[in-house]
Amino acid sequence: MRIVVLAGGIGGARFLRGLKQAAPDADITVVGNTGDDIHLFGLKVCPDLDTVMYTLGGGIDEEQGWGRADETFRLKEELAAYGVGPEWFGLGDRDFATHIVRTQMIGAGYPLSAVTEALCDRWKPGVRLLPMTDDRVETHVAVELEGERKAVHFQEYWVRLRASVPADAVVPVGAEQAKPAPGVLEAIAEADVILFPPSNPVVSVGTILAVPGIREAIADAGVPVVGLSPIVGDAPVRGMADKVLAAVGVESTAAAVAEYYGSGLLDGWLVDTVDAASVPRIEAAGIVCRAVPLMMTDAEATARMAREALALAGEVQAA
Amino acid sequence: MRIVVLAGGIGGARFLRGLKQAAPDADITVVGNTGDDIHLFGLKVCPDLDTVMYTLGGGIDEEQGWGRADETFRLKEELAAYGVGPEWFGLGDRDFATHIVRTQMIGAGYPLSAVTEALCDRWKPGVRLLPMTDDRVETHVAVELEGERKAVHFQEYWVRLRASVPADAVVPVGAEQAKPAPGVLEAIAEADVILFPPSNPVVSVGTILAVPGIREAIADAGVPVVGLSPIVGDAPVRGMADKVLAAVGVESTAAAVAEYYGSGLLDGWLVDTVDAASVPRIEAAGIVCRAVPLMMTDAEATARMAREALALAGEVQAA
Repeated sequence: MRIVVLAGGIGGARFLRGLKQAAPDADITVVGNTGDDIHLFGLKVCPDLDTVMYTLGGGIDEEQGWGRADETFRLKEELAAYGVGPEWFGLGDRDFATHIVRTQMIGAGYPLSAVTEALCDRWKPGVRLLPMTDDRVETHVAVELEGERKAVHFQEYWVRLRASVPADAVVPVGAEQAKPAPGVLEAIAEADVILFPPSNPVVSVGTILAVPGIREAIADAGVPVVGLSPIVGDAPVRGMADKVLAAVGVESTAAAVAEYYGSGLLDGWLVDTVDAASVPRIEAAGIVCRAVPLMMTDAEATARMAREALALAGEVQAA
Repeated sequence: MRIVVLAGGIGGARFLRGLKQAAPDADITVVGNTGDDIHLFGLKVCPDLDTVMYTLGGGIDEEQGWGRADETFRLKEELAAYGVGPEWFGLGDRDFATHIVRTQMIGAGYPLSAVTEALCDRWKPGVRLLPMTDDRVETHVAVELEGERKAVHFQEYWVRLRASVPADAVVPVGAEQAKPAPGVLEAIAEADVILFPPSNPVVSVGTILAVPGIREAIADAGVPVVGLSPIVGDAPVRGMADKVLAAVGVESTAAAVAEYYGSGLLDGWLVDTVDAASVPRIEAAGIVCRAVPLMMTDAEATARMAREALALAGEVQAA
């Protein structure tokens, strides 16, 4: 079975771990969000790709869900001693190596997809990890700061400001001109199932879908497209998805997110059992819906979620 | 008193610390060798400038004489895990910050001299540290390796090969086209004394002198130029200066090094007391010479050496 998963960071990575357990023989291609990539200290940092790579490769800091396990921050402290920031982005000593290798390879002319493949040679994530695009896409968030309207980099909004001010708009700058990375459209066309993990529907999955050709390829693939709600009981399971959902005029409910993706794209949708009451509304929108436990509390719970998603895909397929 | 010192790495840096103690009110300009600069992992590394900066700024690993105190090597281990080398060059986690800041500033268009000034804003070395040039100069060493004649980067010869094969030639590639960095010629012209510390006469001081204009400015400055022999008892005090002296056809003795610099450049020369017998030969070459203890065993011994150098300058001046 060939599965394509559109993944953001922590939620996507953890779901993928469950999916690998649920479908050990599946051929999984992950299309990773690169809209939250950022240049720091002259280095190219790809937080979502790295979170997937570290999580599946056994290098992740399990507790915080991003960054490397057994990490130290001496380099960052030294940069601060030079007065060089930003200090709000937590790059650890081990993690820096990934960004140095990536930046060196990109400087040598390799596209991000080739760099990601080279980095995965080490981590062996057990999936094929592709960036959504080799082109530069940078998600900006329009906010009002100190009485002034301005656009900030997504990471500045998310990490520095901790989404503490309302997002007026979320713009994946450059997406319109971007091309899907080599292999992305092919993987979608050859997929048996396409999954949207419980990642942020706006700044993770939404950014991937904003690359021209990807949304269309998914809609045209003719295979089940099944998603898992990142909203449980009207609140994001983790992160601050509600802040960016508001920016696109979507309420923070499992049903509203399903409708945001829409029945033109989505065939099946899993909501948490606490949101079972929303199933009729979602099915009325033309999306097959089931209510199952959606908290990734441990590996087994996560694998169960993945099995439910694949079961729903089978159900959609058979219908 | 305005003093200009041409400095290499460890020997030059340690001498400078003694000089600051010996002449606390002096205005010291250090012209640093950049011929052993190297690009590693896409980062610009300036070993000699950093050794001076760290030593005078209190950040040096005292025991090994280079790199940062209290250093760890986690980033380097990670690079090795990615299969990215070289592994033979020891960049520590703290040290990496210096190279990242430098590379970022150079990428933003700042010349090395401006970068060095910015880095020194943190370290406050108590001297004005200037690179010999803002242009790219890279010392290559011609060697025979596995039956083949080839040129290797100085660091590869020095650090990886540990000077274990004979050097057939030492070439500061790019030196002929290089211009002295801003401030270098002015500092020399305004100096009251010019000192050559016990640094490597070929790959440290010699490389600085290879930048067109510097040797001439020193010869024309009309002030005492005094050097300290890096060779004591026919062997280098530290390092492998004998290997590169052989490449330029100079025997490894205090007298031969003085003659290599020559009376056209050098007015005074200090040799170690064990080399007292060579004083007449050196003086016969037109260079005033004194034999004094030249082992930088501790801060006080080093300060005494600096005082002897300044005393010899005074003597030369008065003559």
